[in-house]
Amino acid sequence: MDFRSDNVASVAPEIMAAIAAANVGPAAGYGDDEISQRLEPAYSELFETDVRLFPVLTGTIANALSAAVLSPSWGAIYAETEAHINQDECGAPEFFTGGAKILPLQGINGKIQAEELRRRVDAGPKGFVHAAQPAALSITQTSESGTIYSAGEIAELSSIAHGAGLAVHMDGARFANAVAALNDGNQSCSPADLTWRAGVDVISFGATKNGVLGAEAIILFRTELAEEMAFRHKRAGQLASKMRYISAQLEAYIQDGLWLRMAAHANSMCWALADGLGAFAGVRIDKFGGANELFVELPGETVVALREQGFQFYDWPETIAAGPDRRCTIRLVTRHDTNPGEVNGLIAAVKKLAG
Amino acid sequence: MDFRSDNVASVAPEIMAAIAAANVGPAAGYGDDEISQRLEPAYSELFETDVRLFPVLTGTIANALSAAVLSPSWGAIYAETEAHINQDECGAPEFFTGGAKILPLQGINGKIQAEELRRRVDAGPKGFVHAAQPAALSITQTSESGTIYSAGEIAELSSIAHGAGLAVHMDGARFANAVAALNDGNQSCSPADLTWRAGVDVISFGATKNGVLGAEAIILFRTELAEEMAFRHKRAGQLASKMRYISAQLEAYIQDGLWLRMAAHANSMCWALADGLGAFAGVRIDKFGGANELFVELPGETVVALREQGFQFYDWPETIAAGPDRRCTIRLVTRHDTNPGEVNGLIAAVKKLAG
Amino acid sequence: MDFRSDNVASVAPEIMAAIAAANVGPAAGYGDDEISQRLEPAYSELFETDVRLFPVLTGTIANALSAAVLSPSWGAIYAETEAHINQDECGAPEFFTGGAKILPLQGINGKIQAEELRRRVDAGPKGFVHAAQPAALSITQTSESGTIYSAGEIAELSSIAHGAGLAVHMDGARFANAVAALNDGNQSCSPADLTWRAGVDVISFGATKNGVLGAEAIILFRTELAEEMAFRHKRAGQLASKMRYISAQLEAYIQDGLWLRMAAHANSMCWALADGLGAFAGVRIDKFGGANELFVELPGETVVALREQGFQFYDWPETIAAGPDRRCTIRLVTRHDTNPGEVNGLIAAVKKLAG
Amino acid sequence: MDFRSDNVASVAPEIMAAIAAANVGPAAGYGDDEISQRLEPAYSELFETDVRLFPVLTGTIANALSAAVLSPSWGAIYAETEAHINQDECGAPEFFTGGAKILPLQGINGKIQAEELRRRVDAGPKGFVHAAQPAALSITQTSESGTIYSAGEIAELSSIAHGAGLAVHMDGARFANAVAALNDGNQSCSPADLTWRAGVDVISFGATKNGVLGAEAIILFRTELAEEMAFRHKRAGQLASKMRYISAQLEAYIQDGLWLRMAAHANSMCWALADGLGAFAGVRIDKFGGANELFVELPGETVVALREQGFQFYDWPETIAAGPDRRCTIRLVTRHDTNPGEVNGLIAAVKKLAG
Repeated sequence: MDFRSDNVASVAPEIMAAIAAANVGPAAGYGDDEISQRLEPAYSELFETDVRLFPVLTGTIANALSAAVLSPSWGAIYAETEAHINQDECGAPEFFTGGAKILPLQGINGKIQAEELRRRVDAGPKGFVHAAQPAALSITQTSESGTIYSAGEIAELSSIAHGAGLAVHMDGARFANAVAALNDGNQSCSPADLTWRAGVDVISFGATKNGVLGAEAIILFRTELAEEMAFRHKRAGQLASKMRYISAQLEAYIQDGLWLRMAAHANSMCWALADGLGAFAGVRIDKFGGANELFVELPGETVVALREQGFQFYDWPETIAAGPDRRCTIRLVTRHDTNPGEVNGLIAAVKKLAG
Repeated sequence: MDFRSDNVASVAPEIMAAIAAANVGPAAGYGDDEISQRLEPAYSELFETDVRLFPVLTGTIANALSAAVLSPSWGAIYAETEAHINQDECGAPEFFTGGAKILPLQGINGKIQAEELRRRVDAGPKGFVHAAQPAALSITQTSESGTIYSAGEIAELSSIAHGAGLAVHMDGARFANAVAALNDGNQSCSPADLTWRAGVDVISFGATKNGVLGAEAIILFRTELAEEMAFRHKRAGQLASKMRYISAQLEAYIQDGLWLRMAAHANSMCWALADGLGAFAGVRIDKFGGANELFVELPGETVVALREQGFQFYDWPETIAAGPDRRCTIRLVTRHDTNPGEVNGLIAAVKKLAG
Repeated sequence: MDFRSDNVASVAPEIMAAIAAANVGPAAGYGDDEISQRLEPAYSELFETDVRLFPVLTGTIANALSAAVLSPSWGAIYAETEAHINQDECGAPEFFTGGAKILPLQGINGKIQAEELRRRVDAGPKGFVHAAQPAALSITQTSESGTIYSAGEIAELSSIAHGAGLAVHMDGARFANAVAALNDGNQSCSPADLTWRAGVDVISFGATKNGVLGAEAIILFRTELAEEMAFRHKRAGQLASKMRYISAQLEAYIQDGLWLRMAAHANSMCWALADGLGAFAGVRIDKFGGANELFVELPGETVVALREQGFQFYDWPETIAAGPDRRCTIRLVTRHDTNPGEVNGLIAAVKKLAG
Repeated sequence: MDFRSDNVASVAPEIMAAIAAANVGPAAGYGDDEISQRLEPAYSELFETDVRLFPVLTGTIANALSAAVLSPSWGAIYAETEAHINQDECGAPEFFTGGAKILPLQGINGKIQAEELRRRVDAGPKGFVHAAQPAALSITQTSESGTIYSAGEIAELSSIAHGAGLAVHMDGARFANAVAALNDGNQSCSPADLTWRAGVDVISFGATKNGVLGAEAIILFRTELAEEMAFRHKRAGQLASKMRYISAQLEAYIQDGLWLRMAAHANSMCWALADGLGAFAGVRIDKFGGANELFVELPGETVVALREQGFQFYDWPETIAAGPDRRCTIRLVTRHDTNPGEVNGLIAAVKKLAG
């Protein structure tokens, strides 16, 4: 009954099997093995365009290295205030760029608004030597609030950015959940539609939060950035000597739609939570975008009681300050391996407490 | 028949089993899981002193982050000319320190000589504001030439370094091979003897080259460095969200002596090579320190023929320049999973060609 | 009739004389000359405490090097949104710190509010490894809006900062104007009262804007920072070989109260402007803190006409967008060498246009 | 009787006059003044090609910023072992590049040898992702040994560098002395011949050591580098608000051949020293290139006695270790304001001691 984050998840059996399958005799190091060599073709097919791909260990380094190839050290990067790149990476983007600034944009429900971006970009210090030079926009998909940018929204933001000479980065730590959500029911929206066709230059393609052991991919749609990235990637200590075991994860992840199946499951568990909890009088759905994160407001005493019963989750962003009456917002995250029993258990518990 | 490097090796079954065993349900992220929490006690026991431990993905980042806590950005680090930290990390130490210099020392058989270190340190620009300030010494164990520093040699180098106010780092990418070699037969030399008891402040404790999937440990004997390291580690993108799978490798690695058994096997395969090849008229043992790297000089035509037969290895450092008569030095590396058949196959092949 | 900035000012004759007087025969380089050696005693006397002093060329580098000794590279520095350190230094603080973040605080009339600082500091991510660590507060005196912090206000902000483990930096590019203003009439407030006695650890002590040719001083009240600063200062290219000519400026600047006489003159010229312009119906005093910067709102057509008549100044921050009716705010800066004729000329011109 | 360095020199009257002449009323800041605007045309004429020019305070920052536009942060720069860029800038090039390496070349009499450069470049790790990537060559003119590269020698080195994809930087801290020396008597060699016509991309054009108060110029022959340099220059804290006073120095410096007259005088004083001292039995001319630095070997007791008589100079590089018999090498530097009396005084003193 753990709803803390998707990074508490276990590793999918398919991913474990792929790692085991890679463990056969010696293989060339540093990505010169056969599995690693197959990654770029596979991802180029997935994205319907030639891409260059660099496997890395974490989302932090994926974002930081992406920032570093998109911004000079005197540059600045627009991002939503709560974006990981702004708040959760201990200054990694600032470090790997050599001192660029993150310029926070206040979004709505976690999503950058086109109008706000346009206003900021228009007022920006282009060519003004006294100010850090806006160089990139970073979009988080799904956002930190679990909401999803449509292809059209991304295209509009990208268009503003490109029009001002900015590159576009996507932090896709939960990209799979967005793609799965946007292909639910009658909708259809390809990975390509949500990235390069909508103007994205580079994506931090997440996998670890969605059933993988420890692998993310920096995917360059502007392939000419690959030469520089190769050196930055090595120098960042991300060129694993036994790369085959990381590559095997990334290969299996997109094989036969595994990544979208896992994300769709996580999303459906979250829908079930939203439907179940939303029906109760004492509960208010604060934010839910159709992916795998749900923010709900509950009576403070309910939150306390749930924890006592062993349910795990984070208050977001407020802590319960004064007395049991105080309303409290919590974040619930579902995973590829969340089972219906956990979801039903939580719904039943809330029903008793605040139904 | 692959003698290119120990990083071409497969992963040991014990390590794979540990990863699989860690894959049970949800677990806290970012190192707050139970396995990760057991690492520092386990390694403190191994090293017979309280240590702080930070798991990382590669040796490059282990060295670079170690450098960063031991040298200010205006500092300088002495290292053997061929040390990884000087030649093979694409400037990672310079980057992570914020611009420190590596000052190369010309060793003998890959080992830094005390006299040379003393001479350089004495002539060093301590307090001279125009020069980068010597801040650390980095020792590679086993060295890039496969040779081994004794505990006494390390203690002497450390003593010179500490006497001049320098910290001491050990690049222990192949530390296991050194420990195994120094505990062969009647000898006895503990991990503690070879590190902190001999004055080492921080070690990049290698595991990946010795049967692990992808995990190294930065081990701080000066535990007060841990606070700073925690932020540097996170900011470098090395705080894996699913740390348990990395920690499981590092835990299994030292359980029941696995690491030393694997290293001892690799070393014994190298002894077999050295004994076998050294007996042939056309072969000269160039460098062999008793660990898992062997440098042998052969006729150029032999080298060409071996490659044609499918043997894999690197010329080191010279390439065959002119004609089949030119002598050529090659590096042969044995692994935890090198089997006697490979070794015997190579010896037999050389016997035919240059015996 | 130039009211653009105090950096358009000429150099005071006393400063020129000091430079000329320094130009006698050879003298030791890099600050080992006699004049340079006299600076620390002189400034220690001025500030009534032992200080360490590093002469630099610009305010940008004074702020950036101050930031670098007060914040680790994974740190963060609170500053008012419009502070130079946040907006006007092309990322220099981020660069020299090695990637620290500036966290903007929205002030009132350019001044950081204690309550806002307390709120932010309390909510700060102390020890949370995922976030850049708040390390310092930077206060601009006079503020970018020309307003002045009292000694009590500085002490309150410093107290909050120190209470949270933050160092306190003062950007004193116009410190002289503040001191002069706070010692006008019956008031009395020493340089010491406004800095270390109020909790300031390091000040970027400005001089160039106030009649000096090109010299600022980083003054360390926490003298133990000097060892580190010496190397950072040299490495930043600020250890001038002919330091005597820079030191001579800084010595003459505080001799016999020159700095305060010049600042008091600039302030009095600004008071004259404020009194004169404030009397007109069409003019609204937007911000005036009693120092040498005045922000006034005028009809757009008046602004256009003034420029046509040759008056020079900057719109701040808004530009005239639509039609002559639009109100416009301009910034007027007076200098040590602004003469009453310029001031009266501007008042007379505005009187005709908007009186 | 000060032969320590040319940075102990006074400022030439023409330079002082130019500064005084610039001190007339207000002028636009940050290089938008008229004097600053005249610099690029003037230097373009001097160098017979369009150049972009950035005034800076010190040679250290000139070199470091030049390195930063010529090398990526994962790059490497070849330089002579004793070059300032390698030994005397406290890691400034490493810092401003973001972590590039300086690769030292052992020269002869301070000059990089073409053969050695070719050998190193040929063996270089071009495209090898594990190694810092050679990106530039830096040539010091005159060298740290006071020797001079001919135009042909520079062209040969540049040709090797460019052939390998490296940019070429010249550290011209004493460029004036080289030009003056190469235009002595019947020789003729223009500034253009010694720089861009010989393949130099960027020069740190020194002035401070040759009679200027405090000004150096980064001159870009590859003018497309100017856009990036503008931001780096500002961010380094080198965009002086009162730039006119720095620009005035650089303008006067090259007017009517002042720079070459001053350098020629310094050189002639050095020739006089070399001729005078070289005639004595106890003296050996160690290095003299015809510019303003002379290295002579003397009996240790002579050195001691000269110091007792008030002569000032540096031992180079050796200190007197044991007893008065030990031979000692000293460096003698002459200046634009060295007078014949000083030179004759030294010669006479040595004559008495070791003649």
